[in-house]
Amino acid sequence: MTEGTDGKPGTMISRVLAMIGGDGEDSYARNSSFQQEVISSADAVLATGIEQLTLPAPNAGPLVISDLGCSSGPNTVNIVSRLVKMLKSEYQRRGRDDYEFQAYFNDLPSTDFNFLFELLSSERREFFYAGVPGSFYERIFPKSSVNVFLSTNTLHWISQAPREVTDENSAAYNKGRIWLHGANEHVIDAYKRQGENDMRNFLDAKVQELVPGGLLYCIFGSARIENGDTREQYLAPFSEDETSTNVSFGRILEHVWDELIAEGLLTEEQRARCNLPWYKLSEEELRDILKSYEDVFKIVLLQNMEQPVCRTRDQQELDDLMRMARSIYAPFFNSFIGAESSAILFARWGERFGERIQNRTVSPSYCSHVLALLRL
Amino acid sequence: MTEGTDGKPGTMISRVLAMIGGDGEDSYARNSSFQQEVISSADAVLATGIEQLTLPAPNAGPLVISDLGCSSGPNTVNIVSRLVKMLKSEYQRRGRDDYEFQAYFNDLPSTDFNFLFELLSSERREFFYAGVPGSFYERIFPKSSVNVFLSTNTLHWISQAPREVTDENSAAYNKGRIWLHGANEHVIDAYKRQGENDMRNFLDAKVQELVPGGLLYCIFGSARIENGDTREQYLAPFSEDETSTNVSFGRILEHVWDELIAEGLLTEEQRARCNLPWYKLSEEELRDILKSYEDVFKIVLLQNMEQPVCRTRDQQELDDLMRMARSIYAPFFNSFIGAESSAILFARWGERFGERIQNRTVSPSYCSHVLALLRL
Repeated sequence: MTEGTDGKPGTMISRVLAMIGGDGEDSYARNSSFQQEVISSADAVLATGIEQLTLPAPNAGPLVISDLGCSSGPNTVNIVSRLVKMLKSEYQRRGRDDYEFQAYFNDLPSTDFNFLFELLSSERREFFYAGVPGSFYERIFPKSSVNVFLSTNTLHWISQAPREVTDENSAAYNKGRIWLHGANEHVIDAYKRQGENDMRNFLDAKVQELVPGGLLYCIFGSARIENGDTREQYLAPFSEDETSTNVSFGRILEHVWDELIAEGLLTEEQRARCNLPWYKLSEEELRDILKSYEDVFKIVLLQNMEQPVCRTRDQQELDDLMRMARSIYAPFFNSFIGAESSAILFARWGERFGERIQNRTVSPSYCSHVLALLRL
Repeated sequence: MTEGTDGKPGTMISRVLAMIGGDGEDSYARNSSFQQEVISSADAVLATGIEQLTLPAPNAGPLVISDLGCSSGPNTVNIVSRLVKMLKSEYQRRGRDDYEFQAYFNDLPSTDFNFLFELLSSERREFFYAGVPGSFYERIFPKSSVNVFLSTNTLHWISQAPREVTDENSAAYNKGRIWLHGANEHVIDAYKRQGENDMRNFLDAKVQELVPGGLLYCIFGSARIENGDTREQYLAPFSEDETSTNVSFGRILEHVWDELIAEGLLTEEQRARCNLPWYKLSEEELRDILKSYEDVFKIVLLQNMEQPVCRTRDQQELDDLMRMARSIYAPFFNSFIGAESSAILFARWGERFGERIQNRTVSPSYCSHVLALLRL
């Protein structure tokens, strides 16, 4: 487990990797419209392969679906409701009206499950539901107990930053950075290993948990490939005259850390311990992994999706975007540098991001893998 | 839904009927040792009928158990762990080692599920688990999806105080009281109807949710029958020279309300709206209800259990007892009279309870129904 600067167990990765709970101004629930967009474009994805899904035999129990890494807010309730509606139609298309649905909402234990349960209970639902705390990289369901898995905007969160990157004696020690932009090859390789291992652990667990004939839908951050090499974008040094993809989350955030350390507001020691548990697989890396699963998973769909991040460039849109970023990353940074410094970090990040967006001619965009697998 | 004095939706019964969450000094988790005692004496109960339980066929999925009204604390984790251990032995006794267990933790949505999930994740468990928010008086699980239900210390909480008791125009208007001691026959009958209807709704729902051959274990507060008539204890006027069973929760609490209203600290209006959602069925009432379920449930066990409430009578034990009462009832009273008045109520209640315990020669005790049913 990665530990924060204070060394308290409260900063274990499984505790800090939760969005901001509840429904306050800063909450994930009220600042996740971009994720909602990604999810909406996924309706067509969810419809893919549904006709290949094996439904439970009559009287053999409910059709079970699970949203993996659901977070706490309306997005998960909406997508699960829509999926249930589609599945109901599919039952009817096959001439059956004996459907019953059970939905599991899964995320790390620090997720605000109580707020999610309140949302769910606020009206009568077309499905029975339960919350399942735990990491989806491990077994969290009984054997062959789930018919449809769903995972949106979560699989780029790896189970932990690679241990080596905080180890002073390792060639992969990531001093001077909190992520990959401008990092050395060893750091990138360590992240790549972690990302690939996590993906394999994920697939190994889901193979066990899925009913044969069940479906697994995943939408998650994908690395943009430039010049055919994923590493390229990370290895290139930071440059002030950024092109489209360089106006990215990582580039600007690394730069903001540089600034705040130079100003004495953050320390090198804090940065050395703080590494983002993020890795975006390239399509090539993903396809390579999937090859080992050919005998248990049939690929129904595998494609890339690209969506603009800032459309209008007006201040309101930028503010919304930064509030979203804060609702996602604040618990993580708070645990490493405290809430006060974290607030400064987010303010500066918003400022620098705004400047670069305003000065540019091309809009930044966000790339996702879209994957649907059928359990054989 | 019963609403509190402020009329906010936050005081709906399903929101206020939660124990104090977390693990602070006042929490249910740290003040539920009496419930733990009741549960411990139930180990023998849980062993009863296990040899009649139908286990899932090999490879037909996990054995599913659910603790109904689990609350948030170590008690539910302990009892579920012990039950899983017993069930594992039962598999082995029948020559099977293909067991897998899934445990559902159910309680109202306002329960501190996050604290419970933290407890559960603090060590590797022998079962998969999920939280199911909702009232056990309704359907909360798919058809035939649970093998063993368990409900300890919860079924005396009815789904709501009967509507009539807060209706000025009803003969069952319970002015001058918050529960049954000293109430008129109409009030007692209204509570009796509510209690019996709730028990029927409970059994109707669990019949649907249980797998044929599954077991339902319930331990819950039972009315003490004096002179052969349940009503007797409620109809009798309040008396200062109390005998054993009169040193009860209800008697003293009603008296404390009288005192605080006389002193102007609480008002008649507050009392008129506040009625405890509690009803303890007598053994006769329970047996009558069970008669209608003879074709779906076989009674494996039905008996009464009596346990002393105060053993030593020293101040420490009394303090512990009052802290337990507060961890259970504070959210309910807070919603009706506010936290400040509620604190005064609990302090006075403790004082009066202590005086009566110290002055008496007989110890008060708590009676429970112990019930095990086999789904036919």
